[in-house]
Amino acid sequence: MKMVDLINSKRSGASHSEEEINFIINGMLNGSIPDYQASAWLMSVCFRGMSFDESSALTQAIAKSGDLLDLSSLGSCIIDKHSTGGVGDKTTLIMVPLLAAAGIPIAKFSGKGLGFTGGTIDKLEAIPGFRTSLTIEEFLGQVKEINAAIASQTGNFTPADKKLYALRDVTATVDSIALIASSVMSKKIAAGANIIVLDVKCGSGAFMQSLEKARELAQTMVEIGKRSDRIMSAVITSMDQPLGNVIGNGIEVFESIQTLKNRGPDDLKELCLYLGGIGLVKAGKAKNIDEAKKHLGKFLENGSAYQKFLEMVKYQGGDIDYIENPQKLYTTEFAFELKAEGSGYVEKLDALTVANAAKLLGTGRDKKDDLISYNTGVFLNKKIGDKVYKGDLLAKIYANSIEDGKKARVILAKAYVLAKNQVKPPELIIDAI
Amino acid sequence: MKMVDLINSKRSGASHSEEEINFIINGMLNGSIPDYQASAWLMSVCFRGMSFDESSALTQAIAKSGDLLDLSSLGSCIIDKHSTGGVGDKTTLIMVPLLAAAGIPIAKFSGKGLGFTGGTIDKLEAIPGFRTSLTIEEFLGQVKEINAAIASQTGNFTPADKKLYALRDVTATVDSIALIASSVMSKKIAAGANIIVLDVKCGSGAFMQSLEKARELAQTMVEIGKRSDRIMSAVITSMDQPLGNVIGNGIEVFESIQTLKNRGPDDLKELCLYLGGIGLVKAGKAKNIDEAKKHLGKFLENGSAYQKFLEMVKYQGGDIDYIENPQKLYTTEFAFELKAEGSGYVEKLDALTVANAAKLLGTGRDKKDDLISYNTGVFLNKKIGDKVYKGDLLAKIYANSIEDGKKARVILAKAYVLAKNQVKPPELIIDAI
Repeated sequence: MKMVDLINSKRSGASHSEEEINFIINGMLNGSIPDYQASAWLMSVCFRGMSFDESSALTQAIAKSGDLLDLSSLGSCIIDKHSTGGVGDKTTLIMVPLLAAAGIPIAKFSGKGLGFTGGTIDKLEAIPGFRTSLTIEEFLGQVKEINAAIASQTGNFTPADKKLYALRDVTATVDSIALIASSVMSKKIAAGANIIVLDVKCGSGAFMQSLEKARELAQTMVEIGKRSDRIMSAVITSMDQPLGNVIGNGIEVFESIQTLKNRGPDDLKELCLYLGGIGLVKAGKAKNIDEAKKHLGKFLENGSAYQKFLEMVKYQGGDIDYIENPQKLYTTEFAFELKAEGSGYVEKLDALTVANAAKLLGTGRDKKDDLISYNTGVFLNKKIGDKVYKGDLLAKIYANSIEDGKKARVILAKAYVLAKNQVKPPELIIDAI
Repeated sequence: MKMVDLINSKRSGASHSEEEINFIINGMLNGSIPDYQASAWLMSVCFRGMSFDESSALTQAIAKSGDLLDLSSLGSCIIDKHSTGGVGDKTTLIMVPLLAAAGIPIAKFSGKGLGFTGGTIDKLEAIPGFRTSLTIEEFLGQVKEINAAIASQTGNFTPADKKLYALRDVTATVDSIALIASSVMSKKIAAGANIIVLDVKCGSGAFMQSLEKARELAQTMVEIGKRSDRIMSAVITSMDQPLGNVIGNGIEVFESIQTLKNRGPDDLKELCLYLGGIGLVKAGKAKNIDEAKKHLGKFLENGSAYQKFLEMVKYQGGDIDYIENPQKLYTTEFAFELKAEGSGYVEKLDALTVANAAKLLGTGRDKKDDLISYNTGVFLNKKIGDKVYKGDLLAKIYANSIEDGKKARVILAKAYVLAKNQVKPPELIIDAI
């Protein structure tokens, strides 16, 4: 088998066999296939795509390039959840304690993030003392003990994915349904859960801007998972405006705490109950989504989901003073208000523009080793459909410098578009697969 | 400017500016753009193509990456000729002395070949003593003296083309009209002639198997040349059966000598007169192609083209005993005859199959440093349209081992297809641009 022939074959639109895909991934990892051949192949995959069988073989090859986590000691129904990433998405912080409170063990690996804000791990690191780096034994031990753990991946998981991503990032080959789906699913499969709930974001603040692409990605991931004997579900949700009312790191932990106390914004609560509810149904713990949502809602109402979060933070060494007084999580020297210059209804609140404002405050990073700020962020007082009078507070900006805060306010002002007539908020949940 | 953005831009179908193309070529040469980015970009060019302006900018960037030959001391009308390569194509060996005999100075750079047979330089090296490696001064001095020289490129010509080709060869990005056209034309522009006649082969034995692709390549090269102020012409010729009656290295020199003595096969003579004639018309030395062909034909008839070849071989140190007794050029220990097993008319004589038979005899090479044999080859006694009786000699094989000869005969037998009814030979000259 020669790599140049495999590139040519993909270039001409043919499908790879499982053996060929193993050859490519193993060759990339052991260095027998040079990067310049791998990148030409990746570009041909971007143009020609992959069948579900090819994507599945690629996923398996990537998953098997490293360790595979065995979660069988935790029970027979282990749920994992993945979001393709959106502005203000803090659902993992809520769903893990919520499902754990409902008796479902959750062993959740998360990552640091590149982009507008950090990933789940970055957000948790806004809590002083919180240990995100656990050994596999600590991680599983904690789940056995308290049903919940969120940690960054340690050990040698999916090294082929890291190699592939590093190359894709510098060769303009990130944007490919087959490659994205295989990357996500390889990590899910290595992480060991048997029920996987996917939240595929769609809209201006999401990686998939069109519904068509979002649906294709969701379908591909579901098909890949099924081929690895996973119980799969995917939900396509709107990301035209940010999720919830805050964007940042510590401030998103704050809003998660509010939501766990049943005082969070409706859209965020709704999405957490929906995604968690699907997990419950797939695990056979509820008959249908409505029953599941109702069931989970009780754990928000009775405070046990919040208590579970508190317990998890304690267990992982976090300072619970920051949980009990969560406004500490976004205390900055400077705060700026954005006020409405006219009256009407919020017609648009562009997620990407809001994200750019937050990024300017230091909430995100471009490169793996960039520093991020934990305390800065944006609070959105008005969202799509809200009535606004001239002078009303639209948003508040928490900044570490006057310069940053003012710049962010200029950007944020552009995110809001007001209309004269009443506007209906967008449907959050667009489709389920 | 960032390479990843340029890859993304080409991937999405946008056009590069001249500045961007210079950035890419210079970066590839000085190492600031790594091969893995270059190959991803090349693959995106294969899928998206390039406009004539982009191909022209690429050609210029490649040409200017090295030396540019100044031929102005040789006169104001300098003709260069290029063939995209076909089976049995020895036109350069004939056209150079022919045009020189007609008073047109020809300074012809040629290369060693990869493929079924060697390139023009390999063929000339079948003549013992023939020096193909000349300094620029020797090369130009010889043309001033005797009007003709054929040499391999010395000096630092188009280093970017060498770099690009090495990468394309291992990343399945060779097959691209824009990249092929830019590669060919950069070498032609660096070689300094102001009139360029292109022979674009089309058919089973050619790189361009379809007429549509051949026409696109011809058109692209003509447009590139015009943008560099060259007087351009391209002819599309049939390569469904080999050109002339012999394939090999020394044996092709033999057939060239026969043609220069006006005893060569009709198709080969016709093509040389046609391509040379176009050069003459473009140089303003003839009113039209018929007049030009008639004029050039005289130099075959009166022996002066042959004398010019003899003069050139002498000048470059070749042993003229091999020119005066040219059967010496293909003297092998073993010869095999392929005889017709039935009667009829030759309907097909597949050029690619004949090439494979010749290759098996050692006439070509796969890698730059592979050795080739100069004395082996194939003589085709029957070509498309010829009447054949059972037992007639179809072809003769000159081999250095019994094993090779027998294997080649098995292959060669498959190249011939006989039909009951009379068959018209294919038109050699398909189109002119």
